[in-house]
Amino acid sequence: MTRVNDHYLKLRAGYLFSEIARRVREFQAQHPDAKLIRLGIGDVTRPLPPAAIRAMHEAVDEMARVETFRGYPPETGYDFLVDAIARQDYGERGVKVAPDEIVVSDGSKQDTANIQEIFAPECVVALTDPVYPVYLDSNVMAGRAGSADADGRFDRIVYLPCTAENDFLPRLPDRPVDLIYLCYPNNPTGAVMTRAALKTWVDYARERTAVILYDAAYEGYIRDPDVPHSIYEIEGAREVAIEFRSFSKSAGFTGTRCAFTVVPKELQGRSATGDAVSLHALWVRRQSTKFNGVAYVIQRGAAATYTPEGRKQTKALVDYYMENARIIRQGLEATGLTVHGARNAPYIWVKTPPALDSWGFFDKLLAEAHVVGTPGAGFGPSGEGYFRLTAFGGREQTEEALHRIKTRFRP
Amino acid sequence: MTRVNDHYLKLRAGYLFSEIARRVREFQAQHPDAKLIRLGIGDVTRPLPPAAIRAMHEAVDEMARVETFRGYPPETGYDFLVDAIARQDYGERGVKVAPDEIVVSDGSKQDTANIQEIFAPECVVALTDPVYPVYLDSNVMAGRAGSADADGRFDRIVYLPCTAENDFLPRLPDRPVDLIYLCYPNNPTGAVMTRAALKTWVDYARERTAVILYDAAYEGYIRDPDVPHSIYEIEGAREVAIEFRSFSKSAGFTGTRCAFTVVPKELQGRSATGDAVSLHALWVRRQSTKFNGVAYVIQRGAAATYTPEGRKQTKALVDYYMENARIIRQGLEATGLTVHGARNAPYIWVKTPPALDSWGFFDKLLAEAHVVGTPGAGFGPSGEGYFRLTAFGGREQTEEALHRIKTRFRP
Repeated sequence: MTRVNDHYLKLRAGYLFSEIARRVREFQAQHPDAKLIRLGIGDVTRPLPPAAIRAMHEAVDEMARVETFRGYPPETGYDFLVDAIARQDYGERGVKVAPDEIVVSDGSKQDTANIQEIFAPECVVALTDPVYPVYLDSNVMAGRAGSADADGRFDRIVYLPCTAENDFLPRLPDRPVDLIYLCYPNNPTGAVMTRAALKTWVDYARERTAVILYDAAYEGYIRDPDVPHSIYEIEGAREVAIEFRSFSKSAGFTGTRCAFTVVPKELQGRSATGDAVSLHALWVRRQSTKFNGVAYVIQRGAAATYTPEGRKQTKALVDYYMENARIIRQGLEATGLTVHGARNAPYIWVKTPPALDSWGFFDKLLAEAHVVGTPGAGFGPSGEGYFRLTAFGGREQTEEALHRIKTRFRP
Repeated sequence: MTRVNDHYLKLRAGYLFSEIARRVREFQAQHPDAKLIRLGIGDVTRPLPPAAIRAMHEAVDEMARVETFRGYPPETGYDFLVDAIARQDYGERGVKVAPDEIVVSDGSKQDTANIQEIFAPECVVALTDPVYPVYLDSNVMAGRAGSADADGRFDRIVYLPCTAENDFLPRLPDRPVDLIYLCYPNNPTGAVMTRAALKTWVDYARERTAVILYDAAYEGYIRDPDVPHSIYEIEGAREVAIEFRSFSKSAGFTGTRCAFTVVPKELQGRSATGDAVSLHALWVRRQSTKFNGVAYVIQRGAAATYTPEGRKQTKALVDYYMENARIIRQGLEATGLTVHGARNAPYIWVKTPPALDSWGFFDKLLAEAHVVGTPGAGFGPSGEGYFRLTAFGGREQTEEALHRIKTRFRP
C-alpha cells in the first residue's frame, strides 16, 4: 500500500472539543430539562454588518450579468480590498505596508497553518503555552515537532509558558529558535502585549535572526492605547515579522471567510547555499500555486467594512461583544473568582479555585449553572488551572449565564 | 537567517503565462490598433446560473439576521450540499458515494495541490505529459520531485507521455509508482478515457497498490456515453482512487470558488510500521486542521445548481461552451489543421504544422489573426508541437476569432 505521511499519526486526537461534546451529551441525557448556555466556542453570533450585506448583494448581481461577471480572482486579492487594507489598517495608523505586501486569503487558520511550508523542515519552532492548536498541529504534520511524550509535549518544540505568574507574557526562549508564533490579543488567555513588551521580541528576532509569525486576528478588540495594533508599529519589525489578520471576529466573517497576511518585502530567509531568499516571493508562490483567491462576492463584503458606515457597524459589533466580555468578567469577579483577559480581547481566562482543575471546573459549571465553557488544559499544559469563556454569545444568553453563575454556582 | 524550504527554489518560474503576456504586450505595442481575442485562458466568461444567483441572495439575507446567521461552516461541507452531491452526481448514476465521503472545498486547485500532503515524502509520483502544472509543482514543493534537468524534467517524477501517437492516453508506468495523477476529460489535451481504458488503470492500481488521484473537474463536458463520469463507475476504484470535482467549469464558479473531493472509506495507505491507515481520516484531519470550510453563501449557490432549474441552467451553460468548442474545431479543421479534444471537453488541442513549433504557432496566430492561445509546450515536453485553445470565450468573439483564422491565417 502507498505510504502515508507518518507525521499525521503523531497528532493528538481532536480530544478537547469531542470530550466536551461527550460530557455535554451525557449531562443533557441525565438532565433533559436543563437549558444549556454555550460560552465555550470562539464563533460569532451577530449578523454581518449591513454595509457588507449590501455590498455582497451588489456583487452577486454583478455575477449575474455578462458585462460585470468575474472569473478567477487575482490570487493575492483584488486591488479594491488590498488598497483599503493598506490605507486604513496600516497607513492611517502611521504604519507603512504596501498593497502588494498584503495577500488576501479565506482565513487566518489557513494562513497560520500554511505559512510553515515556506520554511525548512529543520527550523526550530517556539510556541506559547497555552496556544491556538493550529500552530502546533501544522508543524507536527510537517515533521517539525518531533515526538510527543505522554503529556503530548513534542520534543522539538520550544514551549513558552504563559501563566498568571508571568502576566501571561512569555519569556524569551532559552535556546536558539527559528520561528516564533505570537498571538496578541491572545487566544485563549485574552492577554495583550504592550509596545515595550513586543519590542523585546522584535529586538530578539533581529538579533537572533528568527522570524515572528504574529497572529493579530483579535486586533479589533484592543482598547488600551499602549497596545500596538500591528507588530509593524515596532521599529525593525518589517525585517523579522509576518502578520496575520482576519475579518472573522471583527466583522463577523467566521462563516463568510476572509483574512489576509502581510509579508514585508524586507523579510528574508536563507537557502541551503546561503543565499538570501525573499519570504514575500515564497509566500506569493505558495499561494499562487496552491490557492486560487477568495470569491469576488466575499472580497466585496470585506471591502465594505472599510467604508464609513462599514467601519461604524464593525465597531458596534466589537463593542457589543466587549460589553459581553465586561458582563462576564464582572459577574465572575463578583463570585470571588480571579479573571484575566476580557479587556482588550473577547476571551475571558478564569483561574480555577485551588480545589478544581480545568476539567473539574468544567463539570461543576455545567452541573450547577448549565453553562458550557472550555477547560484551559485543552490549550496546553500551562492552561491547566484555567478556564476559557468567550464573549461571542448573545446579550440575553450571556446575562442569563452570569445570573445563573452568580446565583447557582459555588466556586 | 531562518532557513527556507529549498524545494521551492526548484520550481520553474511562472514562465508560460508571463512569457505569453510579454509577447502579447510587445505585439500590442507595435500594433496598437489590433483587437486581440484571447482564447488562451481556462477561465469562464458567462454569468452564474440564475438559480445560484437567487440562492446566494437568499443566503446573504440569512447572514443579515441574527435568527438565520451562520458562523463557522462544517469543515467538510454543509449537509444540504454534500447530500445533493451524493445523490445527484453519484447515486443517480448508480455510483455509491456516501455524503460523509465528500469533502467540500474552495477549489480543485487547492485539493489537487494539497492531497499529496497526506502521503509520505518518498512516494513516487506518475504524471501525464502534458499536464496541469499544479500536480507537479505541489510535489516539487514537497521535495517529492527530485532535481530538474535543463529541460525542466524532474528525476524522481515518472512522466507518462500523451501524444497523438497514443491517442493522448498514457501507457501504464514501466516502474513502480505510488501516486498517479489522471485528469479526464483532460486539461490541456481534451482527451477522454473510456470505461475500458480507465479500467486498466484501476486494475493496475489495485494490483500494484498505487493510489489514483482522479481530477474530474471537466466531467460536465462529457457527451460520449462510453466515457465514465466518475472513476467510481469502475469496479474496485473505491479501493484505489480519490476523485476531485469542481463547480468552476460546469456552473461558472471560477470566481465564486467551490469544489469537492471524494475519499472512499475503503481507501487505505500504510504507515512506517506497516499498519493500514484510512486515507479518508487523514484527509478529513488535514482539512479540519488547515481549512475552515467554504462560506455559507457560496455553498448555497453551489447547492442551487442541483435544483431542477439549476441543473437546466448549468446544462445550458456547458452547451454554450461546447458550441464554441464545435465552432473552433470545425473552423480549424476547415483550414486544414488537425484538431484533437473539443468533443467531450472545453479544450481544443491543435497539432501545429510541421514547420511550426508551439511558440512559432503562437507568434503566427497572434500576428496574422490577432488571436491569443497557449503553446502546448508550456504544459510539458510532450506538448511541443501542439497548441491549446479554449471554448470559454463569448460566442461573438469565438466566431470572430475563427473568421479571422479562416480568412487571414495561413498555417
